[in-house]
Amino acid sequence: MNFELQTTSDLARAGKIFTDHGEIETPMFMPVGTQGSVKTLSNDNLESAGAEIILSNTYHLYLRPGTLLLEKFGGLHKFMSWTKPILTDSGGYQVFSLSDIRKIYDEGVEFVSHHDGSKHFFTPAKVIDIQRSIGSDIMMVLDECTPFPSDEKYIKKSLELTLKWAKESKERFENNKSLYNYKQQLFGIVQGGVYKNLRIESANKLIELKFDGYAVGGLAIGEPAEIMYEILDYTIPNLPKEKVRYVMGVGTPENLIECISRGVDIFDCVLPTRNARNGQLFTRFGKVNIRNAKYFDDNNPIDKSCKCYVCQNHSRAYLRHLFNTKEILGLHLATIHNISYYLCVIKEARNAILKNEYASWKKETVSTLQTIINGEN
Amino acid sequence: MNFELQTTSDLARAGKIFTDHGEIETPMFMPVGTQGSVKTLSNDNLESAGAEIILSNTYHLYLRPGTLLLEKFGGLHKFMSWTKPILTDSGGYQVFSLSDIRKIYDEGVEFVSHHDGSKHFFTPAKVIDIQRSIGSDIMMVLDECTPFPSDEKYIKKSLELTLKWAKESKERFENNKSLYNYKQQLFGIVQGGVYKNLRIESANKLIELKFDGYAVGGLAIGEPAEIMYEILDYTIPNLPKEKVRYVMGVGTPENLIECISRGVDIFDCVLPTRNARNGQLFTRFGKVNIRNAKYFDDNNPIDKSCKCYVCQNHSRAYLRHLFNTKEILGLHLATIHNISYYLCVIKEARNAILKNEYASWKKETVSTLQTIINGEN
Repeated sequence: MNFELQTTSDLARAGKIFTDHGEIETPMFMPVGTQGSVKTLSNDNLESAGAEIILSNTYHLYLRPGTLLLEKFGGLHKFMSWTKPILTDSGGYQVFSLSDIRKIYDEGVEFVSHHDGSKHFFTPAKVIDIQRSIGSDIMMVLDECTPFPSDEKYIKKSLELTLKWAKESKERFENNKSLYNYKQQLFGIVQGGVYKNLRIESANKLIELKFDGYAVGGLAIGEPAEIMYEILDYTIPNLPKEKVRYVMGVGTPENLIECISRGVDIFDCVLPTRNARNGQLFTRFGKVNIRNAKYFDDNNPIDKSCKCYVCQNHSRAYLRHLFNTKEILGLHLATIHNISYYLCVIKEARNAILKNEYASWKKETVSTLQTIINGEN
Repeated sequence: MNFELQTTSDLARAGKIFTDHGEIETPMFMPVGTQGSVKTLSNDNLESAGAEIILSNTYHLYLRPGTLLLEKFGGLHKFMSWTKPILTDSGGYQVFSLSDIRKIYDEGVEFVSHHDGSKHFFTPAKVIDIQRSIGSDIMMVLDECTPFPSDEKYIKKSLELTLKWAKESKERFENNKSLYNYKQQLFGIVQGGVYKNLRIESANKLIELKFDGYAVGGLAIGEPAEIMYEILDYTIPNLPKEKVRYVMGVGTPENLIECISRGVDIFDCVLPTRNARNGQLFTRFGKVNIRNAKYFDDNNPIDKSCKCYVCQNHSRAYLRHLFNTKEILGLHLATIHNISYYLCVIKEARNAILKNEYASWKKETVSTLQTIINGEN
């Protein structure tokens, strides 16, 4: 058993994921460390912020530093000196979003490296092998991430391929072993676009393959939030209660809160790290664009109620000065805050579920998130 | 009394500087935080590395964020939340190095901002006033930093102006007060180029003005190290034993070690921070250019004997990967290491002086610094 469902509050779930690198309390947000580094943050910063797991990326790590080096170091944990769990995305999304030239075959996908133009071929089995070299605690299957919008015929055809690949991934996973002295888990990915019948078919066929957990993919790729929630409304109830549910690439704090109320357990997203580097700070009162002139002499912390290192030590005016003078410290501090804030919200969500007060907590929290937007801050 | 000379080892000195923000054990190296931030480092990082004082810059802070904002916050300490001592350079060097258009008058220097082309005029008194707004524990007088090489006639004329400005600085300093509830000190700056008679004249005239400490300026501006040491050989003995001696803008670890043996107490330099961002790491075995392909799979820390966060947690291969993939974390970790290493060397120097073993420590340390250069690493 790799997951324990502790309690529910309506559809929202509090649980625990077990890995050989430690437990993860859910709901949980995974900071994104694409290339073996959560941008601007040291491992100490991540632990202080409350990170229990990070996400890294198969496509990027395969290209740099490469699997040979990762194997030589005994996997990504040792290479980057991160002792807690790691989940790796399969690289499917990156093959489709970063590579200008790619061609899909039944056997896999051919693509050209966005670094040096070199040609590569990912099969479902090869992606498992790469993740064996990485040694991630949770591995993801290779899938085709279809764009939004796509017509039903295209999505149906893509789904067949993705399901074939899922089966091949599971077979490879069962027929080879972890390279290191700990267990790895494998999650399947539900696709099917905006089509209920296809999403349900995808879920059912993946369940037959018995994965350790189930992700919902192909979300947050440009569709309105309401459509994403609708997809979750009919997809999530078709996933087994006793397994982890992961919504990939989502989202804003409000998105997370809405998804949790639909029974999602884990998340990853580049928003807190990427937006930090653009000077956009998340707070419980909404977003603060720290470059804004109105923060010039603002002696308040980013968020008065935040317990992070930055809010305990620095003013908005100082942060704005760092961005204004292009000091790298600004990017670093903004990222510490955003990741701390995300992990704090998710912890509060978990506590609300444990108290069976999720609905009222959600209502109050989402309403407060509108404060700055409504100009009350 | 703002300085206590504890002991000497030949000419090398161990002492303590007293400020209202705490004591500084000397010899000491001051990390450079030009714009109110030591590039890429949080205050926590600085304290962990052993920083007891940082240097900031009058020219830069005057332009951004400006004195009005600094006064509103109660000075730079509060603005950047740094509770230990701060020394500010007068901005003379920046006026001469950063501004394309500047004109020197008897009254001061007119210059154009390197940011927006706006025109400004610094007088010695104004530079004192700006440092009152900043609230630095140690303030520096405005001086003309003459280029190397310059002929004796030019240096002599410049020195007269610099001495006139020093006098005006001291007068202003005595006739106005700290804006905040703590004391500030004022240091004079010995100039005189490579001319012994002018250096000695400069020192003697500054001593008559009774500054709290004495800097030697106009060094490390392109002259060979041997000339710098020669200047210190005849300048330092002319400075009062009971006052702090500060060599500005110096240098490599070897430069520091040589200067300490000539009786210098404090230093500042951008080398550890700037070179870190270029991937050049200082170690006790010499410089490591971490981008070098030979570190690709090197599982050793940057410096095995270093106790810093980076050397305790990360390999050269991981650092190289971060630089190779342009991860900001690479700049951050490299800076932590370089600053930690500088502060560690200076601490070792102090310990050697306290044990009256400076000469033998210096010989051994400088010899080990050649290891990588000689290819033994």
